[in-house]
Amino acid sequence: MVNTSVPSTASTPSLPPSDSRERVSTFLKQLQDQICQGLEQLDGAGKFQEDSWQREEGGGGRSRVIKAGGVFEQGGVNFSEVWGKDLPPSILVQRPEAAGHGFYATGTSMVLHPRNPYVPTVHLNYRYFEAGPVWWFGGGIDLTPYYPFVEDVVQFHQTLKDACDAHHPEYYPTFKRWCDEYFYLKHRQETRGVGGIFFDYQDGKLGKLYHGPDAQGPAAQYSNSVGDVGPRSWEDLFAFVQTCGNAFLPAYGPIVERRQGTEWGDRERQFQLYRRGRYVEFNLIYDRGTIFGLQTNGRTESILMSLPPLVRWEYSYQPEPGTREAALYETFLKPQDWLSGSYSQPAS
Amino acid sequence: MVNTSVPSTASTPSLPPSDSRERVSTFLKQLQDQICQGLEQLDGAGKFQEDSWQREEGGGGRSRVIKAGGVFEQGGVNFSEVWGKDLPPSILVQRPEAAGHGFYATGTSMVLHPRNPYVPTVHLNYRYFEAGPVWWFGGGIDLTPYYPFVEDVVQFHQTLKDACDAHHPEYYPTFKRWCDEYFYLKHRQETRGVGGIFFDYQDGKLGKLYHGPDAQGPAAQYSNSVGDVGPRSWEDLFAFVQTCGNAFLPAYGPIVERRQGTEWGDRERQFQLYRRGRYVEFNLIYDRGTIFGLQTNGRTESILMSLPPLVRWEYSYQPEPGTREAALYETFLKPQDWLSGSYSQPAS
Repeated sequence: MVNTSVPSTASTPSLPPSDSRERVSTFLKQLQDQICQGLEQLDGAGKFQEDSWQREEGGGGRSRVIKAGGVFEQGGVNFSEVWGKDLPPSILVQRPEAAGHGFYATGTSMVLHPRNPYVPTVHLNYRYFEAGPVWWFGGGIDLTPYYPFVEDVVQFHQTLKDACDAHHPEYYPTFKRWCDEYFYLKHRQETRGVGGIFFDYQDGKLGKLYHGPDAQGPAAQYSNSVGDVGPRSWEDLFAFVQTCGNAFLPAYGPIVERRQGTEWGDRERQFQLYRRGRYVEFNLIYDRGTIFGLQTNGRTESILMSLPPLVRWEYSYQPEPGTREAALYETFLKPQDWLSGSYSQPAS
Repeated sequence: MVNTSVPSTASTPSLPPSDSRERVSTFLKQLQDQICQGLEQLDGAGKFQEDSWQREEGGGGRSRVIKAGGVFEQGGVNFSEVWGKDLPPSILVQRPEAAGHGFYATGTSMVLHPRNPYVPTVHLNYRYFEAGPVWWFGGGIDLTPYYPFVEDVVQFHQTLKDACDAHHPEYYPTFKRWCDEYFYLKHRQETRGVGGIFFDYQDGKLGKLYHGPDAQGPAAQYSNSVGDVGPRSWEDLFAFVQTCGNAFLPAYGPIVERRQGTEWGDRERQFQLYRRGRYVEFNLIYDRGTIFGLQTNGRTESILMSLPPLVRWEYSYQPEPGTREAALYETFLKPQDWLSGSYSQPAS
């Protein structure tokens, strides 16, 4: 199916199996199916519409969008599988060994924008690359609430920690910190939300979990604390990514069920629309997936499917002290160790 | 006032006068005053509110915002004057001679988002840099209509051409083309609007008007046609920038007066909100001023003041053939020679 230039022997742990591309893309398509089914059940009214598309330089994908649903004002779940001659410069800086080689990339990504401001926005992306002598997995999942509940944040993180712990005890603490670093809006000095997990360039062979220069904000202090965990095989990492993908519905579904009935009014709506602006800023200024897609002539409508249906900007907005809006900034938009019980509490 | 590291002798035409910074910044502040006064008159109801700010690394500015006016849903006119140790990488790529030198930068920029979808959005920016052995002027003005009228587009361009022609016959054709190239959304294959003029790195000494690698879209074909115009002095270029700045109100004001009374409904409003999304995409993905501001730790609220107050994204939107919305795409979102009388006409 795919014109490969990657050696397919599996004689050392650092090489992928000969059917690596098919196995990963099959899983990522199943993940898209599973997530869309689960979300339609949660939504109760909306249905996903699918567009299949082909990319001129090689590959294609299937984009699924839900609009004006019972819970989701808009949501997109996108699967893509692309190949071509050269990776874009933004990736070659990180993986110079890939220069001059053809590449293969597959991924499933998702962003949901619920209507009720008490239901958080959520993002998921898992992806796999091969290019000449190198391959790697990347991805993660993170939660962006507007009016957060500590209970929801703890449950979300605990579900991700359980998924990580099934594979390596260092995964959750490392990838939780990496998430805090990556989803950081430097120009606002805010995290995007309450985080989750994020990792990139996981090829197992370096024996280090963290080796990306993502540190931008207050979480940058963590970077030096990540140790050597020993080599992990392609199979180890693929199994881990599958567990992570399958953890999405258990992590997010209960939050939707708890909050979708909460009453809200214009105040909550206006704040939600305003905060959605941060999502746009992050995706267009910093997001690696967006930049990769635009640089590789991806399908623009699928790449920008993550942008919210309605957004507000307000010059010099600041929440009034003591309000629930202020609590979001004070407590939730900075890195916290949500599972330690020692996070700073919102003012009551 | 400013700690200069630039030689201040004016013995050759390529050196600025000793009071260059004061003269340019004084003009740019006056331009801000003139524009704000003119816009308040046009608006009839709204008034600009000013925030003065200081930048820790050196410099500061004054940001003026009009909100919920009679004509302008939101508009910002920003003056800034900053200095520091190093120019950001995005500029040093273009001006390697500036590396290792302190820099000085001053500019006035403006974006207006009218409420009536028949009144176009407009953007202006004029700026001046000094860094070690180099100095340059840059800037321009461009118009982004939602429901355009050829008459308005021609009048806008004619006013800019008159301003340019007073200084050099090659300025308008060159800077008009540069504008088409620069304000181009590659990922959409659309110009941002109907253009205007744009130039950057005008230091006079190369004797060429065009030497920026901006060509991205259909206008890229023009680049090779730009010839050598001979050297121009600092005084020549400063006089030209003043004429351009002063041309803004005559170029834009009559359009507001002609269109602000046109009745509009939900259809026009929804299309306007959707098209505003392109403005956000351009500013966050491509705009040199935005990237410069964020990279130099500028004041975020002033930099992002250009973002519209309310914006809509809609997955896979396409205008229906034969509608006025389709005419925008077919006729106005591609480079055209508006003053030749030979542009392609909108379908009637």
